[in-house]
Amino acid sequence: MRADRYLPILEWTRGYDRTTLTSDLVAAGIVTIMLIPQSLAYAMLAGLPPEIGLYASTAPLVAYAVFGTSRSLAVGPVAVISLMTLTAAGSVAPPGSGEFIAAALVLALLSGAILLVMGALRLGFLANLLSHPVVSGFIMASGIIIAFSQLKSILGVSASGETLPVLIKTLVGSLPATHWPTVIIGTAATAFLFWVRRGLKPLLMRAGLAARPADLLAKAGPIAVVAVSTMATVLLGLEERGVKVVGSIPQSLPPFTLPLFDVDLWRQLAVPALLLSVIGFVESVSVAQTLAAKKRQRIDPDQELIALGSANVAAAFTGGYPVTGGFARSVVNFDAGAETPAAGVFTAGGIVIAALFLTPLLASLPIAVLAATIIVAVLSLVDPKKAVEIWRYSRPDFAAMMSTILATLLAGVESGVVAGVALSLALYLWRASRPHAAIVGRVPGTEHFRNVKRHKVFTDPRIVTVRIDESLTYLNARWLEEFVLERVADDPQLKHLILMCSAVNAIDASALESLEAINHRLADAGVSLHLSEVKGPVIDRLERSNFLQGLTGKVWLSQNAAFDAVTVLADRETETNITPDPWLARGLI
Amino acid sequence: MRADRYLPILEWTRGYDRTTLTSDLVAAGIVTIMLIPQSLAYAMLAGLPPEIGLYASTAPLVAYAVFGTSRSLAVGPVAVISLMTLTAAGSVAPPGSGEFIAAALVLALLSGAILLVMGALRLGFLANLLSHPVVSGFIMASGIIIAFSQLKSILGVSASGETLPVLIKTLVGSLPATHWPTVIIGTAATAFLFWVRRGLKPLLMRAGLAARPADLLAKAGPIAVVAVSTMATVLLGLEERGVKVVGSIPQSLPPFTLPLFDVDLWRQLAVPALLLSVIGFVESVSVAQTLAAKKRQRIDPDQELIALGSANVAAAFTGGYPVTGGFARSVVNFDAGAETPAAGVFTAGGIVIAALFLTPLLASLPIAVLAATIIVAVLSLVDPKKAVEIWRYSRPDFAAMMSTILATLLAGVESGVVAGVALSLALYLWRASRPHAAIVGRVPGTEHFRNVKRHKVFTDPRIVTVRIDESLTYLNARWLEEFVLERVADDPQLKHLILMCSAVNAIDASALESLEAINHRLADAGVSLHLSEVKGPVIDRLERSNFLQGLTGKVWLSQNAAFDAVTVLADRETETNITPDPWLARGLI
Repeated sequence: MRADRYLPILEWTRGYDRTTLTSDLVAAGIVTIMLIPQSLAYAMLAGLPPEIGLYASTAPLVAYAVFGTSRSLAVGPVAVISLMTLTAAGSVAPPGSGEFIAAALVLALLSGAILLVMGALRLGFLANLLSHPVVSGFIMASGIIIAFSQLKSILGVSASGETLPVLIKTLVGSLPATHWPTVIIGTAATAFLFWVRRGLKPLLMRAGLAARPADLLAKAGPIAVVAVSTMATVLLGLEERGVKVVGSIPQSLPPFTLPLFDVDLWRQLAVPALLLSVIGFVESVSVAQTLAAKKRQRIDPDQELIALGSANVAAAFTGGYPVTGGFARSVVNFDAGAETPAAGVFTAGGIVIAALFLTPLLASLPIAVLAATIIVAVLSLVDPKKAVEIWRYSRPDFAAMMSTILATLLAGVESGVVAGVALSLALYLWRASRPHAAIVGRVPGTEHFRNVKRHKVFTDPRIVTVRIDESLTYLNARWLEEFVLERVADDPQLKHLILMCSAVNAIDASALESLEAINHRLADAGVSLHLSEVKGPVIDRLERSNFLQGLTGKVWLSQNAAFDAVTVLADRETETNITPDPWLARGLI
Repeated sequence: MRADRYLPILEWTRGYDRTTLTSDLVAAGIVTIMLIPQSLAYAMLAGLPPEIGLYASTAPLVAYAVFGTSRSLAVGPVAVISLMTLTAAGSVAPPGSGEFIAAALVLALLSGAILLVMGALRLGFLANLLSHPVVSGFIMASGIIIAFSQLKSILGVSASGETLPVLIKTLVGSLPATHWPTVIIGTAATAFLFWVRRGLKPLLMRAGLAARPADLLAKAGPIAVVAVSTMATVLLGLEERGVKVVGSIPQSLPPFTLPLFDVDLWRQLAVPALLLSVIGFVESVSVAQTLAAKKRQRIDPDQELIALGSANVAAAFTGGYPVTGGFARSVVNFDAGAETPAAGVFTAGGIVIAALFLTPLLASLPIAVLAATIIVAVLSLVDPKKAVEIWRYSRPDFAAMMSTILATLLAGVESGVVAGVALSLALYLWRASRPHAAIVGRVPGTEHFRNVKRHKVFTDPRIVTVRIDESLTYLNARWLEEFVLERVADDPQLKHLILMCSAVNAIDASALESLEAINHRLADAGVSLHLSEVKGPVIDRLERSNFLQGLTGKVWLSQNAAFDAVTVLADRETETNITPDPWLARGLI
């Protein structure tokens, strides 16, 4: 069972039969057709030669099939990770250079190692630091940057830049060099692809196709554009008229590569590799979980770290670059009927065949067409409605999202992620340090206690009950001290304070020390401290400290019992007109 | 009232009369006597000329009196902040040099500016990041380093080092140079001061003194040692025998100084200044709150930031170095009867008189005696019992404490604080990402629902109720998805899932998106999602999103109503043997 957990391949190969094989082969065929232009396009986006995209779509898929827990996830190059690779490798060498390609390999290795370590140490929870608004904002902003970065290929000019202002500036500067034949091809391809996305499926369905095959056929739109535009380029001699094409791609198996062992380079790329890994992991797991739920299957996020880590290590040793699970591709794989990760292995086989035999056919593919497929793919990532929804729902979350978007657009992808994470965490800590608490009183005629601000309740001027609505931790320990002591400073009649702990799931050492301080300070002010409705595990733990021995009041099972008993106590004190010194009461002087 | 809030001096000067004046003057006299040797000693500990300690005990006290909210806090140089000053300024110049003194001034200015900004922006909550175990560990480790750093003066040798191993190594290496007359003076002073701490008060009480004057008299022990040892040095001509003395201190008012405006230096000192400010603030507020509570007075932590910030800015312009509220000193001030911050102003006056007229008397004071006063003061900070208590109470808190101690001892004070804060935060986030949740069932014959693992309760195989015991935030949103989807994957009979939200105080945008994902994925698996006991503010907010429209189940006021109604629903589905597609039920297909 343990081996099954760490090698999911042992589980799904057990019942593997001919039906499953057929399903997986069909799905693999469809995904391969979709993946060929995507691989070339994303490699180009990452500033790498096109064949590297194909190589990254082989061994990593096999590694994922061995270690992955999703039956439908299709890994390989994806847009956002390609952009992050461009930025990170671009910080150490010019895109396209040998050093740049070497840096991309190192990124894949580091990213793989980071994911493997996170998986082995069960550190997947660190991905939680990326809140949904931050991830959404980052993906949107990346989509915008990617779309602008591809405009140059549509215009047939050269431009570059990691931030939107620089990109736009270089684009505008190069506008006089616009190459019109390229613009025509690029625009036509873009328009066709948009139409395929929106209009082809309904058309096919009106023509009598069922929804699913119509959908899958529509997904094959890019390969049609690739085929038609390549033929047009050859037939019309467009290459000679200055239309840039992919050029000759070596016909080869994925090569065996050894990533550079260069400690300085590793250090320079460590942080980008970490960000890229975590973003890739978060996106991939979310896709895997969505698809798994449709068949009541299970995803183990810690094992996914291992699987994606292995996939990236595999990429590093086979001439690839960082990969992760792709959304569109996985959905196609699922819809086409993939039953097991074997579909991934067959897809890898399809790509190997393409790399060996089909690459000569792709030499005349216009780069503008690849740019068009990227633009159409990433613009679907830009979803302004999402931003509006978050604005309506929560202003702090909107602030985190907008900071991520602005930082990504204006300062680059890495700054964007860091800014978003930092702001989310700061807002979280700010809220965690001000938990909700209420002064409560008894609802007349019942045993219920409710907020005095919202309900007509009975209170006693000598007794204050504070209901705390959060666990007590070091983040809110000082707040608790201030909150309680202010009540006391405000109220000279006060003799007993009850902390109602019904919502307190834990009390850490800092909060314990604060409770001790509160107990001491209240005693100095002549006020006894009581606790009510303390949960079992919390009281067990308090018994391991000296707090309960020093407590000037008592611990009561229910708030109702506490209020009744403390009222009697206060009555007796009022009658005798003697307020006992809480210190004396506990023999502490 | 607003002016009162930002200038507490307006409040306490209003009813100021002769009785208050007398109390404040008496307290100021006693604190001044205590403060003279302390100021000299802590300046020496910080690597600064002795007069700088005196200067730092003048203007900052007046600034605090204007802006501070504590009636009893006594600000000035303290041990831990002096050590941090030595480390920080020592990183840019050798201790004692002109550049070093300039760096200490800059530290005071930066620290003041940071505190003022934190106060103005109400960022006091950032101090919460320092958990009690981290602060305790840091103070203990600092105490150990300080004690070892002063051993050199007791032995009459020179040694230095910011970490314990280096300190011990240089101390051991310089042992052959031990100066025996110095050792005798230093040891005698240390032994006497320890005895004063433990034995003098009982002795005075047995001699008939009341507890409080006996205590105050015992606190004056250091000044007696200073007087006796200075006289002995003069009479026995010890200086000529090689006993190092304080030497001539300029007779002067605190000078007006302008801290260097050097951006590079500011950048180098920014992080140390931040750490020093926050540590100083946390310690100071804790002392102020303890004393305020004894008289039911109130401390405003945000205003304290302003007050301590002003005190440090004042120090920067009057030849001082970073200051904060001191524990022992404030307790003496309180016990001696200080009624208002005017006592601080009078203390400052006393120190000015000392700086003008008494400094010649201190020229022959042996440095070993100052070292003895420091050692005796800081060893009370080292409290191994505290560590044992934390170990017993909470292992994660103990881990945070020990990391802080070890990092401080082995890598220096700044690394210590950073390590402690980082580990506490990581542990907190880890716990926050795995909140408590329970599958609950109905206690037979009641309307109560309890954990199925702890109670004999009734459940229905078609219905699972998950009670979530925390607010839903981005830190636990993914955990929630995994937790819920695992239940579904485990249980093919399941048709309805109820989330019981009685302990959910808030749902942020990430958690909302996760709830939407859960709703979709459950629908794909043929399971309806219901919510029960959702709090008012939470439901109000959910209504601002599209979540409730898409919800496949319903929102129920009570868990009891939810369970009854969903059981009826499930019965109907079982009878008709038709499981409605939850998507269809909501018109979503």
